[in-house]
Amino acid sequence: MRTSRDAVELFLRRQHQYLPHLSVDCVVFGFHDGRLKILLLKWKGLDVRALPGGYVGRRETIDAAAARVLAERTGLARTFLRQFHAFGGVDRHESDLRRWFRAVGVAAPRRAWTFARVVSIGYYALVDAARVEPAPDFVSERCDWYDVPRRPRLAFDHDEIVATALAALRHDLGAGALEAPLLPERFTMPELQRLHEAILGRRLDRRNFQKRMLERGVLKRLAQRRTGAAHRSPFLYRFAAGRLVPGARQMTRPASLP
Amino acid sequence: MRTSRDAVELFLRRQHQYLPHLSVDCVVFGFHDGRLKILLLKWKGLDVRALPGGYVGRRETIDAAAARVLAERTGLARTFLRQFHAFGGVDRHESDLRRWFRAVGVAAPRRAWTFARVVSIGYYALVDAARVEPAPDFVSERCDWYDVPRRPRLAFDHDEIVATALAALRHDLGAGALEAPLLPERFTMPELQRLHEAILGRRLDRRNFQKRMLERGVLKRLAQRRTGAAHRSPFLYRFAAGRLVPGARQMTRPASLP
Repeated sequence: MRTSRDAVELFLRRQHQYLPHLSVDCVVFGFHDGRLKILLLKWKGLDVRALPGGYVGRRETIDAAAARVLAERTGLARTFLRQFHAFGGVDRHESDLRRWFRAVGVAAPRRAWTFARVVSIGYYALVDAARVEPAPDFVSERCDWYDVPRRPRLAFDHDEIVATALAALRHDLGAGALEAPLLPERFTMPELQRLHEAILGRRLDRRNFQKRMLERGVLKRLAQRRTGAAHRSPFLYRFAAGRLVPGARQMTRPASLP
Repeated sequence: MRTSRDAVELFLRRQHQYLPHLSVDCVVFGFHDGRLKILLLKWKGLDVRALPGGYVGRRETIDAAAARVLAERTGLARTFLRQFHAFGGVDRHESDLRRWFRAVGVAAPRRAWTFARVVSIGYYALVDAARVEPAPDFVSERCDWYDVPRRPRLAFDHDEIVATALAALRHDLGAGALEAPLLPERFTMPELQRLHEAILGRRLDRRNFQKRMLERGVLKRLAQRRTGAAHRSPFLYRFAAGRLVPGARQMTRPASLP
């Protein structure tokens, strides 16, 4: 296995292959046991956690760069991936990255653009956590799921990126069938409500929720009911075909969801 | 006045002051006589129309770059400006820009990044059209308002940028008091409805519209009514303070709206 020092030096040799001063960061959300989860990296040899991210190839679209990062970290080739905001402050990166390079014993070259200002395009992904095989990148030793409300503090401005992603996800929640990638193909109204509660971070009134969901016109009630439940058998629903979110750049539902 | 050829050469000498491969484009919406308007530039000596845009200074945030472009083109220092999408395709720019440089008699330098790939961050602005003094930039001879449904075809991928801005504006319309910059401080329900119809591009049912608007909880009905109308005096409304759109980066209501 390549040491992190070798990997960093390899990266520095290859940096001309990327568009300078630009990166993508992916906020990967999953839903498991009624909890909203987020995928984070832990850097090698440092108590630093950060979002999966990467640079953009000179002949690679920014959407393709985000999809590549997501595929490398999750093993999922086709996922719901949505650009939500570009982060373009003037002091986003340099100090943390220089510190980490020093920690692995590499002198940060004075003229490398990776230590100067980087504008990052943020994408959020909605994935089925059960199908993800988290894989660290070359600067990380671990890649793990964390509960969103109990996530650790992150490096750079990644806390702001996560907060903005959550706001965008909440803002988008009313439109189309955004929740589809986080739910089984057929689900009950209480299951849908628990997902909304996890995203919004608060409890919702059952009757108002059901009324609002049915008014959205994106749900189709099935003839079949959920059996084997402790109480009376609840109705099963699925999302109506073709009611995906407008404006989403990439939104491919995994082919083999249960 | 500087000729366009001089201006282009000045720009080429100054391009090291900007972050390479990055730009901002502003979709400036106004509302006048019940119509949604858009501010467009016409290039010098060519039948080419495009969005106001510019490059990002090496020590300038992307938000500040967009605000600067907007201020230069409209004369407005403080406006509602919202980042909505980054456009990062691999062939966005080069051919049109090279053609225009040739038209003004400047050979496009082989190594200038402005002719290579550029990623552009899109912002939409909502402004009071009556207060705007449109001003062309150094590559343009005119800066004018156009009706959104009757706008001309635009250069580069600017038609896609406008379509995406409209989709974002429509998507954002339900949240907070987004419409405030496009309306007088006090307005009637029919005036609000005409704005929504202009943005959505379709007629709305009066009673459903009023019900939905009141349910949003962002409107405050005033004791005062509009007088002098042909029919019965309609109620006046204003937006409740502090109900602006979540996630907006910059959202300053002009200080001196009527």
